[in-house]
Amino acid sequence: MSRFREPPDPVFSALNASIGFDRRLAAHDVRQSKAHVAMLAEAGVLEQAEADELQRGLDEVAVELREGHFAFHPGDEDIHMAIERRLTEIAGPVGGKLHTARSRNDQVATDMALFVREESEGARRRLCELMGALADLAERHADWPMPGYTHLQRAQPVYLGHHLLAYFWMFRRDVDRFATAVCATAELPLGAGALAGVNWPTRRDSVARELGFDGVAENSLDAVSNRDFVLDYLSAAAICAMHLSRLGAEIVLWSSEEFGFLELGDSFTSGSSIMPQKKNPDAAELLRAKAPRVAGDLSTLLGVMHGLPLAYNKDMQEDKEHLFDAVDTLNLCLEAATGMLRTADFRRERLAAAAGDEFLAATDIADLLVRRGVPFRESHAVVAGLVRHALEEGKRLSDLTPEELARFSDRLDDEYYAVLSSGSWLESKVSEGGTASARVQEQLGRARAVLAGMEP
Amino acid sequence: MSRFREPPDPVFSALNASIGFDRRLAAHDVRQSKAHVAMLAEAGVLEQAEADELQRGLDEVAVELREGHFAFHPGDEDIHMAIERRLTEIAGPVGGKLHTARSRNDQVATDMALFVREESEGARRRLCELMGALADLAERHADWPMPGYTHLQRAQPVYLGHHLLAYFWMFRRDVDRFATAVCATAELPLGAGALAGVNWPTRRDSVARELGFDGVAENSLDAVSNRDFVLDYLSAAAICAMHLSRLGAEIVLWSSEEFGFLELGDSFTSGSSIMPQKKNPDAAELLRAKAPRVAGDLSTLLGVMHGLPLAYNKDMQEDKEHLFDAVDTLNLCLEAATGMLRTADFRRERLAAAAGDEFLAATDIADLLVRRGVPFRESHAVVAGLVRHALEEGKRLSDLTPEELARFSDRLDDEYYAVLSSGSWLESKVSEGGTASARVQEQLGRARAVLAGMEP
Amino acid sequence: MSRFREPPDPVFSALNASIGFDRRLAAHDVRQSKAHVAMLAEAGVLEQAEADELQRGLDEVAVELREGHFAFHPGDEDIHMAIERRLTEIAGPVGGKLHTARSRNDQVATDMALFVREESEGARRRLCELMGALADLAERHADWPMPGYTHLQRAQPVYLGHHLLAYFWMFRRDVDRFATAVCATAELPLGAGALAGVNWPTRRDSVARELGFDGVAENSLDAVSNRDFVLDYLSAAAICAMHLSRLGAEIVLWSSEEFGFLELGDSFTSGSSIMPQKKNPDAAELLRAKAPRVAGDLSTLLGVMHGLPLAYNKDMQEDKEHLFDAVDTLNLCLEAATGMLRTADFRRERLAAAAGDEFLAATDIADLLVRRGVPFRESHAVVAGLVRHALEEGKRLSDLTPEELARFSDRLDDEYYAVLSSGSWLESKVSEGGTASARVQEQLGRARAVLAGMEP
Amino acid sequence: MSRFREPPDPVFSALNASIGFDRRLAAHDVRQSKAHVAMLAEAGVLEQAEADELQRGLDEVAVELREGHFAFHPGDEDIHMAIERRLTEIAGPVGGKLHTARSRNDQVATDMALFVREESEGARRRLCELMGALADLAERHADWPMPGYTHLQRAQPVYLGHHLLAYFWMFRRDVDRFATAVCATAELPLGAGALAGVNWPTRRDSVARELGFDGVAENSLDAVSNRDFVLDYLSAAAICAMHLSRLGAEIVLWSSEEFGFLELGDSFTSGSSIMPQKKNPDAAELLRAKAPRVAGDLSTLLGVMHGLPLAYNKDMQEDKEHLFDAVDTLNLCLEAATGMLRTADFRRERLAAAAGDEFLAATDIADLLVRRGVPFRESHAVVAGLVRHALEEGKRLSDLTPEELARFSDRLDDEYYAVLSSGSWLESKVSEGGTASARVQEQLGRARAVLAGMEP
Repeated sequence: MSRFREPPDPVFSALNASIGFDRRLAAHDVRQSKAHVAMLAEAGVLEQAEADELQRGLDEVAVELREGHFAFHPGDEDIHMAIERRLTEIAGPVGGKLHTARSRNDQVATDMALFVREESEGARRRLCELMGALADLAERHADWPMPGYTHLQRAQPVYLGHHLLAYFWMFRRDVDRFATAVCATAELPLGAGALAGVNWPTRRDSVARELGFDGVAENSLDAVSNRDFVLDYLSAAAICAMHLSRLGAEIVLWSSEEFGFLELGDSFTSGSSIMPQKKNPDAAELLRAKAPRVAGDLSTLLGVMHGLPLAYNKDMQEDKEHLFDAVDTLNLCLEAATGMLRTADFRRERLAAAAGDEFLAATDIADLLVRRGVPFRESHAVVAGLVRHALEEGKRLSDLTPEELARFSDRLDDEYYAVLSSGSWLESKVSEGGTASARVQEQLGRARAVLAGMEP
Repeated sequence: MSRFREPPDPVFSALNASIGFDRRLAAHDVRQSKAHVAMLAEAGVLEQAEADELQRGLDEVAVELREGHFAFHPGDEDIHMAIERRLTEIAGPVGGKLHTARSRNDQVATDMALFVREESEGARRRLCELMGALADLAERHADWPMPGYTHLQRAQPVYLGHHLLAYFWMFRRDVDRFATAVCATAELPLGAGALAGVNWPTRRDSVARELGFDGVAENSLDAVSNRDFVLDYLSAAAICAMHLSRLGAEIVLWSSEEFGFLELGDSFTSGSSIMPQKKNPDAAELLRAKAPRVAGDLSTLLGVMHGLPLAYNKDMQEDKEHLFDAVDTLNLCLEAATGMLRTADFRRERLAAAAGDEFLAATDIADLLVRRGVPFRESHAVVAGLVRHALEEGKRLSDLTPEELARFSDRLDDEYYAVLSSGSWLESKVSEGGTASARVQEQLGRARAVLAGMEP
Repeated sequence: MSRFREPPDPVFSALNASIGFDRRLAAHDVRQSKAHVAMLAEAGVLEQAEADELQRGLDEVAVELREGHFAFHPGDEDIHMAIERRLTEIAGPVGGKLHTARSRNDQVATDMALFVREESEGARRRLCELMGALADLAERHADWPMPGYTHLQRAQPVYLGHHLLAYFWMFRRDVDRFATAVCATAELPLGAGALAGVNWPTRRDSVARELGFDGVAENSLDAVSNRDFVLDYLSAAAICAMHLSRLGAEIVLWSSEEFGFLELGDSFTSGSSIMPQKKNPDAAELLRAKAPRVAGDLSTLLGVMHGLPLAYNKDMQEDKEHLFDAVDTLNLCLEAATGMLRTADFRRERLAAAAGDEFLAATDIADLLVRRGVPFRESHAVVAGLVRHALEEGKRLSDLTPEELARFSDRLDDEYYAVLSSGSWLESKVSEGGTASARVQEQLGRARAVLAGMEP
Repeated sequence: MSRFREPPDPVFSALNASIGFDRRLAAHDVRQSKAHVAMLAEAGVLEQAEADELQRGLDEVAVELREGHFAFHPGDEDIHMAIERRLTEIAGPVGGKLHTARSRNDQVATDMALFVREESEGARRRLCELMGALADLAERHADWPMPGYTHLQRAQPVYLGHHLLAYFWMFRRDVDRFATAVCATAELPLGAGALAGVNWPTRRDSVARELGFDGVAENSLDAVSNRDFVLDYLSAAAICAMHLSRLGAEIVLWSSEEFGFLELGDSFTSGSSIMPQKKNPDAAELLRAKAPRVAGDLSTLLGVMHGLPLAYNKDMQEDKEHLFDAVDTLNLCLEAATGMLRTADFRRERLAAAAGDEFLAATDIADLLVRRGVPFRESHAVVAGLVRHALEEGKRLSDLTPEELARFSDRLDDEYYAVLSSGSWLESKVSEGGTASARVQEQLGRARAVLAGMEP
C-alpha cells in the first residue's frame, strides 16, 4: 500500500501514531463518511449499490464503536485508517472505495470542526446550568449585606446577591464566545482533498447540509491548513477558565476562618491525611488551578501553528490532545463549579458584621459634602482627614463629636450621623447596575430573561 | 488629599505609576469626561454653569494634549489625575467636581473599552488593505502553476493565485474576530463607581449613547473587574499574528535560492554588515518573529487575571502595556505585510519548473484507475508501486513503458500518458474551492465582493 | 554601501530598526570593540597606529554615550552601526577598519552575553538585599506564633520568623539560578563572524580574557545562533518573579481587615480616588501581577526560537525587548519587595489570636494517641470524630469532658488537656527544619551564614 | 476516617482524584516509605518488629506494582492512599503506623523530587546518545561542503560536519541544564510534615542518605510549598525541545525537493492517504511541533504557582500531569531524533552544487581588499557594487573581466580570480571554532572528549 520498503521504526510509530487519542473522533468520522458516501452516489462517482454496502458497513462500525467492541489493531495508525480497515473487513473490497475524492487532510479537519461545534454547544449548556445556580443563589441572598472589596480591602458594602450576579454576567459573555466558536466551524473542509480540491464533480453543499455546516470552505489550501476554529474554542475556554479561577479563588478566600463567609458542603471538600480537623476547599482550589492549563493549551496550539507553511503539516496533529485536554478540563470545572455552589452555606452574621465596618461609609460622607456644594476632590480630602483622625484616636467615625467634625469642615451636621447608621450605604447606590435593592431586582429579572432565552 | 502621613517611596512610585504608558489613553479620557460632565448637568448633579466651565476647561486640555504641549508633572501618578490636575489649574476649584459620581475604576475601564474599540476598527481597516493587496496579487497570478505542498513535500500543483487567496480567507476570519472584539466593548462601564454603583441618580444610557456604546454594564462589580474585551482583542490579534507568521515564513522560504519563487523589492529587504552579496528578507522574518510576542501579550494578561478576587485589583493595571504592545506590533506587521507583498516579484519559470514535476500527478493516475472501477485504496497501492519502480530505475513516470505499466495493473493504457502531460492536473481539480481555473475565478469574485462589502 | 538601488520603505524601517532599544547595549558594544581592536593589532591585522586611533575614537564615543550627548542619526539602524558611524566621524576612514574580522552576528551575541552576565550579577545583588531584609524580619519575629495554612485553612501553628524564612530559601535558590545564567555566558561568541568563522588569524582567547569570558564558543554556527543564555536568564527571572508573586499575594491577604496580620507603611501603599478611607497594598499587588509578565517574556523568546534554521535569522532580534523588559521588571520588583518589607508592621495580637485556635492542635492529639500505641491512621480517625463532635456541640476541644473523650478512645487522659494548653504545639515540632524555636534559631544561623558567604 | 458526614460528589471525585496519573510515582513512593520506616525504627518511634512487618508488606506491594497485579480500588484517591490501603490489607493494623511522622504534603514533594532526579538523569543519557549520533554523522561528513545560511539566504560555505556539530554543542548545554535540575532536588522534603515539621525526633539525614539526597530542606514550610525543581526540569526540557525543533525544522527543509540535501530512511517517514508518491518527514515535523507543548507545560506550571500563599495548596497537584507530559514528550523526541538521524542519507552533489554558488565568496573578496589596505567598510561597498553589477549583467563573479573589475577598484588583480576558485573559501575560515578543516577536526576531538567524559 505504499512506496516504502522498510517498516516504520517502533520509536517513529510511537511518535507518529495518533490512534491513542484521535479515536475520540470516531463517531464524527463515521458520520462524515456516511455523508460523503451519500454524496458520491448522488454525484454518480459510486454506484448506488456500492454506496448502500458502504452505508451498511459504516452503520455496523458505528455500532461496534458505540458499544465498545470495536477491535483496534496494532497497525491502526489513526482513527481514519482504523475505520476504513474495519469497514473493508465487514464490507469487502468496496471498502477501498470510501476514500475516493477525499484525503485525510480534509477528513480530519472536518472531524475536528464537528467536534468543536459539539463541544462548544456542550460548553454553552454547562454554562447555562452554572448561571442558573448563580441566579438561584443570588436570589436567595439578594439582601444579605457584605463588604465589597477593591485591592482586597473593604471598600463599599454590597449585597451578596449583587456580588454573585457579577459572575453571572462573566459567564454570560463566555456563552457568546462559544457561540462565536460555533460560527467558526460554519464552513465544511471536506472536498478540499489533500490541498488542491479533488478530481471529481463533488457536491460539497449537499455534504455541508447533511452535516450541519452553513456552507463550504472557499479555498482548498486554506481548508486543510486552517485550525482557527480550534483556537477560537481554546480562546473561549481559556477566558472562561480564568473566570472560574476567580470564582474559585474567592470561594477559597471566603472559606478561610478569617473571612468565614461560607462553608462548602462535605461533598465538595476533603480532609487531610495528617490533620484531622481540616476541611479543605479542594474543588475551589482546583477551579483556580486549572485556568493556566487551559491557557497553556491555547498558547501551545498558537505555538504549533507559528510559521507553518501551507498546506497541511504533520505539526497540526498536535491540535488534538490540547483541544481534548481543554474540553475535558473545562467541562469538569463547569460541572464542579455548579455542584459546589449548590452546597455553599453562606454565613449571614459574618458577612453582616464585616459589612458593618463604618469606614465603608467614607464615600457616602464625602458625597454628603458634595451635595452641600463642596467639590468632590475637596470633600474626599476632608473625609480622608476624618478617617486618619479616627484611626489615630482609636475611634469609630460615629464616635467623633460635632466639635471634632468641625475641625475638618463646617458642613458636617447631624446628617453625618444619619449617614453612618448602617444600611443606607447600600441603598444609596441607585445608579443603573448598582447594588441598591431595586437595581439588584432589575438585574435578577434580566438574568432570568437571559436564562429563559437560552433554554432549549 | 489623603489619609497618609508619609510620601511614597521612590521605588514604590516607579513601580506604581502608570503615567509612563497610560497617557496614551488621554484623548479617550477627555472624551469620556466631557460626556460625564454633560450627564451630570442633565441629571442636576452639576449646575449648568459649572458644567460649561468644565467643558471649556476640558476642551483646552484636549488641545494641549493634541498639540503636544500638555505639561506633565512629576506627581502625576496616572493620566486621569494629570488631566484633573490640569483642568483644575485651568478652570479653578470647579475642576474638583469632575470626579463626582465616578471612580478611577470605572473611568479606566471605560477608557480601555474606547481604546479597544478604536483599535479593533483600525485592525479591520489594515486587514482590508492587506486583503486588497492579496486579491490584486492573486488576480495577476491567477494562472501561474506552482507546486502545492504538504509536509513541505511537493504534493499537487496549484495556481499561485489560489495559494495567495488562501491567505485572503485567513485574514477574512480575522476581520470577524476584530468585529467580535468591538462587540465585546458594547457595554459602558462608567457609572459603576468604585465597585457598587454611585450615590447619584445618573443617566448612564445617555453617556453610553454619547460615547458610542450600545448599553450599560449590568453589574457594577463586574463592570470594574472585567477586562474580557482586552482579552478578546488580544486573542484576535494573536491569531492574526499567527496568520502573518505563516505568510512571513513562506516568503522567507520562497526567497531562498533553493526555492527561488520570488524576489522582494529592495525597500523591504536589507543587506549584511559583512557579506556584500546578501539580500535578506528581514520584513518577512519579522512577520514570523512577532507572532509569539502577541501570543505572549495574551497569555500574560490571562495570567494576570488568574485567580483575582473581585472587584478591582491593582494587578489589572498590567492590562495596558500588553495591549499597547500588541496593538503597535500588529498594526506595524499588517502594514509591512501589505507593503512587502506589493514589492513581490514572482518568478514564473521557477514556479512552473517545480510544478512540472511529474510525481505531482500521482493522485491523478490513481483516480484514473478509480474511474475504471479499481477501489481507491487499491489504485493508490498500484501507483505507489509505480512510483517506487520509477525512482529505483531513475525514470520519470512518463518514461515507463506499457510493459512496465502492465506489471502493476492491466488497466493502464494510453490515457496514462495523457494524464501525465502536464496542465490537466490543475484543471482537473474541479471541486468547489479547488484550484481549477474556473474555481479560482469564482473565488476571486467572492473575494472582491467581500472587499466591496468592507469598504466604507 | 550596499547592493541595493532603492531606499528602505518607512514602514520597513520602523519594523526593522532596533536602534530604539538596542542602544541599551552601547557600553558593552564599545567595550567589545576595544577588545577586538586590541586583538586585531596583536594579531597583526591592524597596524598598532591604526589600533591606537581606533581606541582613542572609541574612548571618545564612550564618553559621549555616558554623558548623554551622543547624537543618534535617523539612518542609524542599530547601535553597532551608530557607533561605527560616529567613530568614523571622529577618527576618519580608519573607522572603516573596525568591522574587520567580525560580523554583526557575532557582535550582537557578544553584547547580549555581556549584558546577561552583568544583569545576572545585578539580580544576585538585589536578591541578597531582599534576603537580608527577610532575615532581619525573621529574627525580630522569631517567636511570634501565627497559624500555618494549607489550602488557606488554618493547619498548624508556626512562628512568623519561620514563615518569613521560607521565602529566604526560595530566593536563595534564585541566587543559584542567576549563577547558572552567568555560567551560560562563559563562552565568547566574537570571532564566529557571520557564521563560519573569519578569514583572519584571530586570537579569540585573548579577547575572551579581556572581556571576562572563560573561553571561546566551540562552533561558529552555534555561536551566532545561540540565545540559550538569554533563556537561562529569563527562566531564572520567571521563577524568581513567581516567588515574588507568592510573597506579594500573602502580603495582600495579610493586609486585609479579615486577616489583619500586618500593616504596610504609607510609603508603599496608596489611597483611592473615591474612597477616602482606603489604604491599598498596591506594591504587594504589583509584585503578584508582574510574574506573568516575566513568564510571558520567557515563553515569547522560546516561541521566537522555535523551529528556526541555522544560523542567524532576523527573528533573533526579538530577544532584546523581552530581555530588557524582564530585567527592568525584576529589578524593580526585587527593590520594591525589599523596601516594602522594611515598612511592614506585624500585629502580634492578631497573629496570636489566630494561632490560638485549638483545632490547630488536632495533629498533636493524634500523635499523643500514637505514642500510646494506636496506629496513626486509627488515631487520626479518633481525633476527626472528636473534632466533628466538638463542632456539632459548639464546643472547643478543651471543653470536652473526660466522659465525652471516653466515647472516642480509652487512651485519652489528662495529657489530652495538657497538649491543648497552647504553646507546646509549636515547640513540639522538633524535627530538623521544623518550627520549634531551637530549629528556627539553627535556621537563622544558616541564613546568616549564607548571607555572609554572598557579601563582596 | 474523617470528620465528614457526606460522601464526595462524583463530580468532585473526578476533579479531585489524582490516582489516574500519580500512580506513576508508585515505585518512588514505596521506596521512600521503606526509608521512612527504617528511620522510624532507628529513632525508636516504631518497634523493630513493626518496622520489619512494614518492610515485608512494602516489598510485597512493590512486587505487585512491578508485576502489574496491584489492584486499585475505586476509593483510592491517590497513590499514597492506595499503597497504604494495600499495605494494611497485607500487613494488618500495623499498616496504619506507616503514616506516623509524615504527611502527604512532604511525601508527595519527596516522590516528585525522586522522579525529577531520575528523569533528569534519563534525559542526560538520551542526550548522550543523540550527541553520539551527531558526532558520528559529523565525522562521516566532515569535509562535505554545503552553504551556510543566514536569513535562509546562502551566506558562506561550511562543511556539513561543522553544521551538524553546531547541534552537538546545543545539546551539550542541555546536558548541563539537566544536571542543574538534578542539583535542584538535592534537599529532602520528607520530615517537613504537613508544613511545620513533626512531633517526633526524626533523623532526616539518614533518610536523605538512603534516598540519595545531599541533605534536608532547611525550612518545613518551604519544603512542602516548593516545586522549583519541577520548574527547573521543565525549563531544561523546554529549551532542549526548542533545540530539537530547530533540528527538525532543518531536516524538513533539507528533505524538500528544492533543497534536496538529504533523504530520510523509510523507517522514519510516512506516506500519504491520497498521494502515492509522497514520502513525508513526519518525524522531523513532530520534533518541530512538540516544542511548544513542552514550553506550554512550563508556562502552565508557572501559572499554577503564581500568587499561591504558603504552604501546600491543592493547586500544586497540577504539577504532575504537566511534568509527566513533558518527560514523555522529551524522551520520545530525543529517541526519535537519534533514530531519525541514523537513517539520514545526505546527498553530496546537491550540497556541493549549492555550496559552489560564487556569491558565497563575496566576503572573501572583500577581505582580499582589506589585506590590501582598504578599510573593511569600503571594501564591503566595492564588492556590493560588483555583485549588483554581476546580477544586472547576468554574469557570475568570475565572468567579470579585469576591465569591469577596474571600474570598482584598482586593487583587484588576478588574486580575485584565484579567490573565486572554489574550496579556499572554506579553508580560509581559520579562526578558532571556524569551518576550516583543521578547526573542524579540533572540534570533533573536543566533542569526542565530552562524550567520553559522559559515559558511565
